[in-house]
Amino acid sequence: MTIENTRILLAARPKGEPVAEDFRIERAPLPAPGKGQVLLRNRWLSLDPYMRGRMNAGRSYVAPIEVGAVMEGGTVSEVVESLHPALVPGDLVLAEGGWQTHAVADGDGLRRKLDPDDLPLTTALGVYGMPGFTAYAGLREIGRPAAGETVVVAAASGPVGASVGQIAKLHGARVVGIAGGSRKVAHLRDDLGFDVALDHRADDFAAQLKAAVPDGIDVYFENVGGHVLDAVMPLLNEFARVPVCGLIAHYNDSAPPPGPDRLPQLMALALARRLTIRGFIVFDFNKLYPEFLREMGAWLREGRIRYSEDIVEGLENAPQGLIGLLRGENFGKRLVRIA
Amino acid sequence: MTIENTRILLAARPKGEPVAEDFRIERAPLPAPGKGQVLLRNRWLSLDPYMRGRMNAGRSYVAPIEVGAVMEGGTVSEVVESLHPALVPGDLVLAEGGWQTHAVADGDGLRRKLDPDDLPLTTALGVYGMPGFTAYAGLREIGRPAAGETVVVAAASGPVGASVGQIAKLHGARVVGIAGGSRKVAHLRDDLGFDVALDHRADDFAAQLKAAVPDGIDVYFENVGGHVLDAVMPLLNEFARVPVCGLIAHYNDSAPPPGPDRLPQLMALALARRLTIRGFIVFDFNKLYPEFLREMGAWLREGRIRYSEDIVEGLENAPQGLIGLLRGENFGKRLVRIA
Repeated sequence: MTIENTRILLAARPKGEPVAEDFRIERAPLPAPGKGQVLLRNRWLSLDPYMRGRMNAGRSYVAPIEVGAVMEGGTVSEVVESLHPALVPGDLVLAEGGWQTHAVADGDGLRRKLDPDDLPLTTALGVYGMPGFTAYAGLREIGRPAAGETVVVAAASGPVGASVGQIAKLHGARVVGIAGGSRKVAHLRDDLGFDVALDHRADDFAAQLKAAVPDGIDVYFENVGGHVLDAVMPLLNEFARVPVCGLIAHYNDSAPPPGPDRLPQLMALALARRLTIRGFIVFDFNKLYPEFLREMGAWLREGRIRYSEDIVEGLENAPQGLIGLLRGENFGKRLVRIA
Repeated sequence: MTIENTRILLAARPKGEPVAEDFRIERAPLPAPGKGQVLLRNRWLSLDPYMRGRMNAGRSYVAPIEVGAVMEGGTVSEVVESLHPALVPGDLVLAEGGWQTHAVADGDGLRRKLDPDDLPLTTALGVYGMPGFTAYAGLREIGRPAAGETVVVAAASGPVGASVGQIAKLHGARVVGIAGGSRKVAHLRDDLGFDVALDHRADDFAAQLKAAVPDGIDVYFENVGGHVLDAVMPLLNEFARVPVCGLIAHYNDSAPPPGPDRLPQLMALALARRLTIRGFIVFDFNKLYPEFLREMGAWLREGRIRYSEDIVEGLENAPQGLIGLLRGENFGKRLVRIA
């Protein structure tokens, strides 16, 4: 039996919400590593909201995925063949292996080796990987919550939001988490230690949020947009910070929403309240990565930061996994176990 | 003959653009200074766009002017009576004297004494005062233009914009100024040394701006909003900084403009380009004031920063002066000479 590479391609650029037909699964010969490279077997694939943006044409912070190309994504992978001096078969690594069973990668380009006896491997794609680092760096470089300040984060049961809330708590802030549905809300409150947890689907959500922040909002960690931002805006304090790392509510938008045009209102608010609104991509802060690994690693080993995972079984189910993620169906970090 | 105080009150809150009836002039007895206070005769009154915001009800960064209260504003004033140990009649001071011929002020609360043998007194209300300091602090703390970067500023013939452009040039930046009308545009180019000057009233303004910034925009000093911001947005580079100190295009708005709603688009741009959008009020940066006085004073004495002034004669013409300022009628810093 010949081992083949099973891979999922971008078949078409989605219009609005992606559908199954925007993806295509195929088999291809195993790629062969060149000098300095390794052949990887991908064990776990990360599913993340940013992937939706990469499926669009047009300029963003990185080039889009081409139609007909393999979907990109972070993986926990095992080295099966190595032409790199520091890696041997059996090594486990954090890679950009993509939506496929196998990949070739430059050994020097791999983010890090993973120790199977330390934290669970899957955390390298969640709380102890890109999403956790997004929370860590965004809070540290932009949000900068002081003890006693109020931090609000949405998508708070996801891996970024859950990390934001728990790190902010470790800094002594008061944390309000927002999520969709009573199960997620209970998780924030009962398992993750958020001071207040709110369901953004509630009819009186804006009033609930106002009541939950009697001293206003000092940091709004923006990863959602939409009606959560609408409710947050009037509650922002003078000198509030708004790190912007995602806008999942808008990723499927095919046109701007109807008016009125609130852009001038946002600018006026930025002026009157002296807001700092700052977008960032986690790799802007790569210099903090070693510190993140050290500090977050300690918090995880001590049980001071908790996390939940949502496993999709089988590479062939990755498209539905991403579609569902964009609808908020996941409970915690969504990963694909590649069979 | 008894000397009286002539003063202009806010008679009504404007709806949209202010009209003459929103102001009322009256005479009142001269106020008497108490212990530690001085009686001032106001010589020059500053007219500034922020005054429009103060005429509205509702929360902004300072309390609104009450209906029936004297209009507030910065003044160059002469001490005529002093119950303060460090001030004597004849001293010239920078004060918040308001729209009136006389005022009582706490001697300790005066911003600074003015030397009539140094720079012209009127500069204390313009390039060497609040507007110039706004430019200085906003560039230094938020804009931070590096040599070779491109800085764009609108209302560029006004005292903030003209200072922004010239200070940015002193930092080695390439500067594009935007103003309304050919006379202002020529002034930017011929007198103030802007690299490019554009008329925002041109039909093809957005195309002209695009052509003027082949390397994109690194700093957009926002004091206008409106269609200038619209043209700027797509041209902002990654990691561009947008200090927001004013939005004169919107001060007379009574409702948000029609849709589509571009707020999500701005947030998406902030994310993709990693923009920093930060509102500020000049007094947030008071710790820089001594440095501003030293550095800007030197630039002015050496002729490295130039300025123009637009004089309104007589306190009774202050309302029309402000109404015209909000329409962009002024050419340079608008001041009222109080007869």
